[in-house]
This record gives sequence, C-alpha cells and structure tokens, in this order.
Amino acid sequence: MPKLKKTARRHAIRKEIESNPFVTDYELSTQFEVSIQTIRLDRTHLEIPELRKRIQQVAEKNYDRIRSIEGSEIIGDVIDVSPNEHATSIIHVNEESVFTRNQIARGHVLFAQANSLCVALIHQPIVLTQSSEVKFIHKVRLNETVRAEARTINKSDQYYTIEVKSYVREDLVFLGTFKMYYTSEDEQNG
Amino acid sequence: MPKLKKTARRHAIRKEIESNPFVTDYELSTQFEVSIQTIRLDRTHLEIPELRKRIQQVAEKNYDRIRSIEGSEIIGDVIDVSPNEHATSIIHVNEESVFTRNQIARGHVLFAQANSLCVALIHQPIVLTQSSEVKFIHKVRLNETVRAEARTINKSDQYYTIEVKSYVREDLVFLGTFKMYYTSEDEQNG
Repeated sequence: MPKLKKTARRHAIRKEIESNPFVTDYELSTQFEVSIQTIRLDRTHLEIPELRKRIQQVAEKNYDRIRSIEGSEIIGDVIDVSPNEHATSIIHVNEESVFTRNQIARGHVLFAQANSLCVALIHQPIVLTQSSEVKFIHKVRLNETVRAEARTINKSDQYYTIEVKSYVREDLVFLGTFKMYYTSEDEQNG
Repeated sequence: MPKLKKTARRHAIRKEIESNPFVTDYELSTQFEVSIQTIRLDRTHLEIPELRKRIQQVAEKNYDRIRSIEGSEIIGDVIDVSPNEHATSIIHVNEESVFTRNQIARGHVLFAQANSLCVALIHQPIVLTQSSEVKFIHKVRLNETVRAEARTINKSDQYYTIEVKSYVREDLVFLGTFKMYYTSEDEQNG
C-alpha cells in the first residue's frame, strides 16, 4: 500500500480507532508508516483523545452495568462486561506497581486486577472471594499493559467459579481461578 | 487483685508493655480496670507511644534484616522476622482496604499482606511469586487488625514454599500457600 497523504491518513486513522478503540499510537505509527509524533498530531486534529482516556471513557460506560462494586473500587479499567458471563479489564503497570530494585510487577497487583474483575463481573449486591488459585507465568515489567479476561466456568446456588487469564500483548502472564460467594440479600454487619 | 493506685498502675503498665509491646490500650484498660482515656494519660506520662507507633518502631528495626524487598514496599509492618524461617506482620484495616458498601476488607489486601511477607521472609536478592493458593475463611472488617504469620514449610534449589496464616485476634481469617522462586544472582531485565 502506498503511503497515504495527510488527509487520507487522518481519515484512515479515524476509521481504525473506531473499529479498534484500544489500538496504541505506536501500532498506528507502524501501520501508517509515520512517526508517533505525527499520529499524536493527527489525533489532536481529529479530536480523538489518547489511549488512556479512550479506555477510561469505555470503562465509565461499563460501570452502569456493574452491581457488586463501585467503579472507583475496581483495580483497572473495565473495557467490556457481560454480567455473570465475562469481563475484561486493563491496567497500566506504573512505578507504584513494581519492585523498585528490579522493575518487575508485584504479584498482588495482578491478583488485585483479577480479583476485582471477578467481583465486578457478578451481578449481585454482595460478592466476596472464597478461595483462589493463581499462577504467575511470565514476569510483567514497568510500563507494560495487562489485559485480564475473566469468564464464568461454573455457577451454583451460592458460588461462581471464574477463570481469569491475563495477557501482555498476546503472552499469558497470569492464570487464576476464583471461587466467589454471592448473595442477593444485603447482609447485616456484626 | 485490688485496683492499683496511680503510681503503682503506671509502673505495672510500663512492665506490661515491655513484655508485650503489642498490647492495645483497650486490653490494658480491661486489665487495670480503668478507662481507655486513663491508659492514654498514663502512656503519655510514661512517654510510651501509641500502639501504631510501637509497631512501626519494631518494624523499622526488622527492615535491616530483610534483603529481597525495600521496607517501604512491604504491605504491613513486619514485627518479627527470622530470615528464611518465619516472619510476622500486622496491618490495620482502614477505609481504603474495605468495600465502601459493606465495610468488609477486600481480598487482595489480605493477599498483598501475605504475599509481601513471603518476599520479605526470604533472604535472597531476587524473590518472585510463582503460584499461590489462598482461602478467605472469615470476613475482616473496617478497623480490625490482621496479624499474618508466615513460615517456610519446604525449600528446594529454586523455590521456597511458605504457609501464611492470618488472624484477627485469635480467629483465623486467611490461609495461604505461596510457592516463591528465588535466585541469589541479579537478573538482567529484558
């Protein structure tokens, strides 16, 4: 494909982001054979916000469909949720999420993303974690983006069993099974 | 035992805190049959800081004995550590650690306390979590104090297996097994 002229490229970028809202500036720059700076200028011209903001906009729409937890209490941005069936969230691994000395993401950060996604997935007023088995398969490093995909694999009267697979790009980095207790009635404290 | 006069009581409180630095003001007030306010005044007179500060003072001493993680990166205060053998930490469950709607501690907070205690316990430059099985046995509520006790149950060339039991008072609230990878050599990133 010959390199596009500016107007044609901007048109193509808009279409690309519409069909894949989570495409990065880097991926666009490779696809259209221009610099990341050019992509940023194109987005500014098109009034399309940066990736982080696009993710948050999608996440905020999803919060209306989540019953068991406040949106602000979820670790990560929920970019997709089908109540009681499956859900996906994204976190960006920042300085606070890694060990200072080796810049590797801390285990509990991946656990927290997966666990809160399980809570968000279940459309019940009270959801609590009963037990969990997790495997940390690949190291996750500073500035990487982790996409957690949760899906229900079993449901009983009191429990959902949910499998979570987390990826950096296409690499599986974390695998977890969460047994989640739920009740449709508000419980008394104490 | 007859109720003590002020001077005798203060003397006894000092001895009690020396032998049990983690006794609460509430426990002292019950033991000496005076109000919590009186215990606070007694401590002020004796120049003994509040419990939270006493825990932090002990924790800071322990950080010298921890090799795999910065003291500030540990979730909780480490009040006891025998490198490669056992360790104990304490967290106070505050507003940030609970679900807003039911004031129950979030699972990943207990997981983070246990997991970072496992890292702290192992006296090696690089320690990473390989896998983990956890059970959330009792609900933990706002303002409760959780004491996590970790001990090594197996050690091989590359892995430690560590069991963590976490308690609120004498009640077991969390049980976890963590398989921890370690290496004595610094790894390259990338």
